[in-house]
Amino acid sequence: MRVTILGGGGFLGQKLAARLAHEGLPGGRRVTSLTLFDLAAPAVPEADFPVHALAGDLADLPDAAIPDGTAIVVHLAAVVSAAAEADYDLGRRVNLRGTDAVIDACRKLSRPPRLVFTSSVASFSGGQGAALTDDARQIPANSYGAQKAAAELILADASRRGFLDAVTLRLPTIVVRPGRPNKAASSFVSAIIREPLLGLATTLPVPRDFAVWVASPRRAVDWLLHAATLDGAALGLDRSLTPPGLSVTVAEMLAALDAISPGASALVREAPDPLIAAIVGAWPAAFVPARALALGFAAHETLEAVVRAFVADGLEATRRDRQ
Amino acid sequence: MRVTILGGGGFLGQKLAARLAHEGLPGGRRVTSLTLFDLAAPAVPEADFPVHALAGDLADLPDAAIPDGTAIVVHLAAVVSAAAEADYDLGRRVNLRGTDAVIDACRKLSRPPRLVFTSSVASFSGGQGAALTDDARQIPANSYGAQKAAAELILADASRRGFLDAVTLRLPTIVVRPGRPNKAASSFVSAIIREPLLGLATTLPVPRDFAVWVASPRRAVDWLLHAATLDGAALGLDRSLTPPGLSVTVAEMLAALDAISPGASALVREAPDPLIAAIVGAWPAAFVPARALALGFAAHETLEAVVRAFVADGLEATRRDRQ
Repeated sequence: MRVTILGGGGFLGQKLAARLAHEGLPGGRRVTSLTLFDLAAPAVPEADFPVHALAGDLADLPDAAIPDGTAIVVHLAAVVSAAAEADYDLGRRVNLRGTDAVIDACRKLSRPPRLVFTSSVASFSGGQGAALTDDARQIPANSYGAQKAAAELILADASRRGFLDAVTLRLPTIVVRPGRPNKAASSFVSAIIREPLLGLATTLPVPRDFAVWVASPRRAVDWLLHAATLDGAALGLDRSLTPPGLSVTVAEMLAALDAISPGASALVREAPDPLIAAIVGAWPAAFVPARALALGFAAHETLEAVVRAFVADGLEATRRDRQ
Repeated sequence: MRVTILGGGGFLGQKLAARLAHEGLPGGRRVTSLTLFDLAAPAVPEADFPVHALAGDLADLPDAAIPDGTAIVVHLAAVVSAAAEADYDLGRRVNLRGTDAVIDACRKLSRPPRLVFTSSVASFSGGQGAALTDDARQIPANSYGAQKAAAELILADASRRGFLDAVTLRLPTIVVRPGRPNKAASSFVSAIIREPLLGLATTLPVPRDFAVWVASPRRAVDWLLHAATLDGAALGLDRSLTPPGLSVTVAEMLAALDAISPGASALVREAPDPLIAAIVGAWPAAFVPARALALGFAAHETLEAVVRAFVADGLEATRRDRQ
């Protein structure tokens, strides 16, 4: 099967590409070629199938990004939360016009591909008290979330029309991200684990009892692969799913950190940031992901397993990159 | 106050313009000028303030359509249900790119205007059994509804950012529309009243026990005027409202017709149309519009009053137009 990853140079895109190269698709389906598309040509993993790297603007998507015969498109490209809040036009161009460009590229194919789209917990509001069910309305409190929720509607309609076959995953905040802090308002959620493990001080913009809905990179990739091969007929008109993340407090995260690296949480200093707190404070702290569980999306591992996985998979690379 | 009506040449746009010319805005607010924008320059009502008619493409909105100082923009322009289903690109261009163009025009003003936007019952599904509350998710079963629901999200976000101050009304099917059948899948809902009153035969694409959520043109204009002058702070992040329409069956409509014009319903012939039935069959037959009622939107008049109002206001003009 031909596969394309839009946003293939990003963190999850690279993880997914590596998994496809090592393990292929679930159910023993073979990848015959992989195209990675991003603003800059993505790094290419070693694989026993051809891997193409392509650079460009999502809103002006070249045909080569989704060549005819593509069976699976994983669309991860986005302008993330704080960036879309800072630059409305950029967020709209990538998060909305980009989605239209993806639809138009899929319409040109001889067969409608599976389109795995990543939406976000940021498309909901409700805040700390919330534990949202699959029936909850999306009332976003930030432009990124509004653009993602709108894109979900447009992709569900494109699925109904037969242009493509979308499965949207509203991803939790991914933790632990390697590398450096980024422009996501939730950047601190990874930083409070990653930076102390590197021996570096970092700041906490929210209180310690602040709860957040998270998922590990490994589980997120598991979900993307499951979404790529799921029977779409089970979804009906509603192509969006909230996968089973974990609801954790900052204090629980710091305890998991200390369990693996005793005393490391001393490097985390509280520095309230009203702007960050306003964005992430509106996101629901928990979901009841019944529909995704019923559709076979893997339940989440423990928080300590998440931190251990980062130590095993991401810490050394991060240390190397940042030297 | 300066007022603009986008889609000012359409049925509701012309009704609203006439009301503004005769009665002004609610609460005695004075209209100082009115701009009507549509694909063709709209007819201009007699008024004691200047009325400008302007033609153009919504997605390429000229600055003159929303001149600086505009306090109220009523955005009624749309590619309607059956038309958006028939031509995806046209629907997307007008219903989505057009909304972006309206946002960009509002961003240029010195003060963010009230933006009254009309979304639709077609943005929901649920069908004949449904009686949806204000918490119901929008899971559209047609492109028009998907584009309207997406536009609601984008306008709510633009409100949060302070580009404009949106109030979205998800209008019921409007009955009785004057003139000729149009490209809305719900065109028959007016036709089964209007055509027999003109002495003309018409067809019914759905069964007689089919229920539909309707509103009269008069009440729809009442709601638009209330939305134009409502205190937006009461809405919070969620700028969309389902106003209090009427849930009626085709049989009840035909009985109201016969009450006013005995025997007229004999001109309505059943002619099942699976395409039309599939679109309108997905729309919810009823809502529980608690939020709109609490915010002062007028409850609906009776079905017989609706038919009588059409006989009084629209029948003669329709007869004249169609000769």
